[in-house]
Amino acid sequence: MSLLVQKFGGTSVSTPERIREVADHVARCRRRGDEIALVVSAMGKETDDLLYMAKQVSSKRPGREMDMLITAGERKAVALVCMALADLGVPAQSFTGSQAGFLTDTNHQNARILEINPTRIKQALTEGAVPVVAGSQGVSTDKNVTFLGRGGSDTTAVALAQALDATMCELYTDVSGVYSADPRLVAKASKMETVTFQELLEMTAAGCPKPALRSVEFAYSHNVTLHIRSAFTWESGTMVVREDQEMEKAIVKAVTHETSKAKVTVIGVPDKPGLSASLFGKVSEMGLNVDVIVQNVSADGLTDVSFTIPSEQIDLAKTSLDATYLASIEADSIAVTPSVGVVTLVGAGMKSNPGVAAKMFGALGDENINIDMISTSPIRISCVIEPSKAEQAVQLLHTTFGLDY
Amino acid sequence: MSLLVQKFGGTSVSTPERIREVADHVARCRRRGDEIALVVSAMGKETDDLLYMAKQVSSKRPGREMDMLITAGERKAVALVCMALADLGVPAQSFTGSQAGFLTDTNHQNARILEINPTRIKQALTEGAVPVVAGSQGVSTDKNVTFLGRGGSDTTAVALAQALDATMCELYTDVSGVYSADPRLVAKASKMETVTFQELLEMTAAGCPKPALRSVEFAYSHNVTLHIRSAFTWESGTMVVREDQEMEKAIVKAVTHETSKAKVTVIGVPDKPGLSASLFGKVSEMGLNVDVIVQNVSADGLTDVSFTIPSEQIDLAKTSLDATYLASIEADSIAVTPSVGVVTLVGAGMKSNPGVAAKMFGALGDENINIDMISTSPIRISCVIEPSKAEQAVQLLHTTFGLDY
Repeated sequence: MSLLVQKFGGTSVSTPERIREVADHVARCRRRGDEIALVVSAMGKETDDLLYMAKQVSSKRPGREMDMLITAGERKAVALVCMALADLGVPAQSFTGSQAGFLTDTNHQNARILEINPTRIKQALTEGAVPVVAGSQGVSTDKNVTFLGRGGSDTTAVALAQALDATMCELYTDVSGVYSADPRLVAKASKMETVTFQELLEMTAAGCPKPALRSVEFAYSHNVTLHIRSAFTWESGTMVVREDQEMEKAIVKAVTHETSKAKVTVIGVPDKPGLSASLFGKVSEMGLNVDVIVQNVSADGLTDVSFTIPSEQIDLAKTSLDATYLASIEADSIAVTPSVGVVTLVGAGMKSNPGVAAKMFGALGDENINIDMISTSPIRISCVIEPSKAEQAVQLLHTTFGLDY
Repeated sequence: MSLLVQKFGGTSVSTPERIREVADHVARCRRRGDEIALVVSAMGKETDDLLYMAKQVSSKRPGREMDMLITAGERKAVALVCMALADLGVPAQSFTGSQAGFLTDTNHQNARILEINPTRIKQALTEGAVPVVAGSQGVSTDKNVTFLGRGGSDTTAVALAQALDATMCELYTDVSGVYSADPRLVAKASKMETVTFQELLEMTAAGCPKPALRSVEFAYSHNVTLHIRSAFTWESGTMVVREDQEMEKAIVKAVTHETSKAKVTVIGVPDKPGLSASLFGKVSEMGLNVDVIVQNVSADGLTDVSFTIPSEQIDLAKTSLDATYLASIEADSIAVTPSVGVVTLVGAGMKSNPGVAAKMFGALGDENINIDMISTSPIRISCVIEPSKAEQAVQLLHTTFGLDY
């Protein structure tokens, strides 16, 4: 008998019909002999609706109150899933994050899990019931309700799987797995049967929308087996494995892209030791989510430092790196490009095969796609390009690296 | 400085605009120098919407899950009210029933408060913040979320006022106070400046919709001062007082009515000691909510026992008083009238003025309104009549007893 933690996202439980379908699936899994624990997100667009409501009510939205508001969505969903299970004769018990034993820090709207004490979840399993846990929530060390942030249900599921020592964590979503590129852009994109943790980490960090990066990090560091699959077709999805058997070969596995990044360039930084460190210390301290970084040393001892951030952090970047701060690092000014594209190749074994990068740059150059910045990791190459060229670049690279099925 | 517990019902917080109006009122009260603690219901028709959603999802709706579902409504409302207060510079903290220290029994969907430990509420007040408590909810002795039932927010407010030793409990609603009759029916109905607890208890038991009977009982037995008033006009409403200064005079204060009752008659009960007691013991044990009771002794030693119940309990009455049970009390059969009207006069001092009853019966008789059953208390006379005549009877009695303004 396996213990499976199954997580269902918002689109998977968006309507009464969908909730009943999820319950049907759980009942089938139990008949097959598996023990099931569920993690459920808020229904459909409810979290967005609640955020919109809050904006209508007030221009000041304290984090503590936002978390009280938003976590109501998951509470409704877990209760309804339990009712649908009851209808099928499957005993079930809903649990809030607090009841499920998720203790977090006090960082509202983006709380981190400190500890899990799943006493009541284990008790429910012992009684033969399906515990249904509200995703993305917990209780803080000062006893307030906390929200783990958007996409936090994936993290709840992975952390619960680890705490329960589950056989597997299944993340059910509205796509049937992890793809070699966004299937909306690349007609011949194919579902990957397996992906390594390192590859998936790079992909989610570089624009692959699901699952949430944090949950993959948690699963990787705590050795939780992940299966990313569809709550609509119920077919087998993508298994996340620890090691690729063919790690030694340079295999480009996927092309991902993002168009929601901005580029910030700090102009005229003296090329002295410590100034860069100070700059990125400041940037990190202000909560800027820096991605690709490039530093150009110019002839006159001044450098330009460029980095990408999420577009919504442009204002934060401008206030963080104000004139006073720039003066303190003897820099000249900053320039912001509001929108850039990032196209990324992911695959194990790239490090020892420098030909991959050359092939990528060549393919882009042949199509007159200019590369603005480059960033690499052992299993990833990212190029910052014109946002209007991102779609073309993804299609081109998918073909170039033989990913078309 | 007074400490006021203010409760806002669903219509008072039904939209973002209304929530901001409530916040404005609280800010005004604080500027006036009062300390405020709030109790808030779910927004508008949200509780109805959640019940409808549950019915769409499942035919089995366990009480524990219904309570998890429904209490989400009040959580959203308290968070939004706190945000609106923050917008006005008023520090506020939301609390779930559990966080506010409401310990209840395990009777889901209709839990009773066992104990209140308002440590965190007192702490918020000490810090100069407005505590905003989710109405009608608590945590049970076995650590599950409980709902106090419809109208339970009034009870939460009264209980909180008692626990905090507040100066007054203000129940804000969509009417401007307690009326001498339903103003929709009786054009000349007037708002009562004061009403005694006994009168209000009789009125709410006999169809006056607000406030909830349970909250009036709690306020009466725990000596909480109540003020029932409007969240729309903000004018002063009806004060509930312990004793009427003019108690000795027979003053008819109000006419109330109900048309959602059914009548059950148990036919042919032997007129033996103990059988009636058995019948009403059974009825109470089955959870039937019995109101007016009449027993007629017939010539042949058999009696018919009639009583009224809420219409929605007809099926429960039929299954409770089935053939097996009727045989055990040697009764013949039962007859059910699905809909009857009840019209009630309420006023202190009726007991010592038998003329009031005679005048009531005469007025109804003059208009050919037949009286089916009668029930009285020291400050109430109720007559069961044709439901189609209820409206006419209320208007008639309001005039007869000089209540028209």
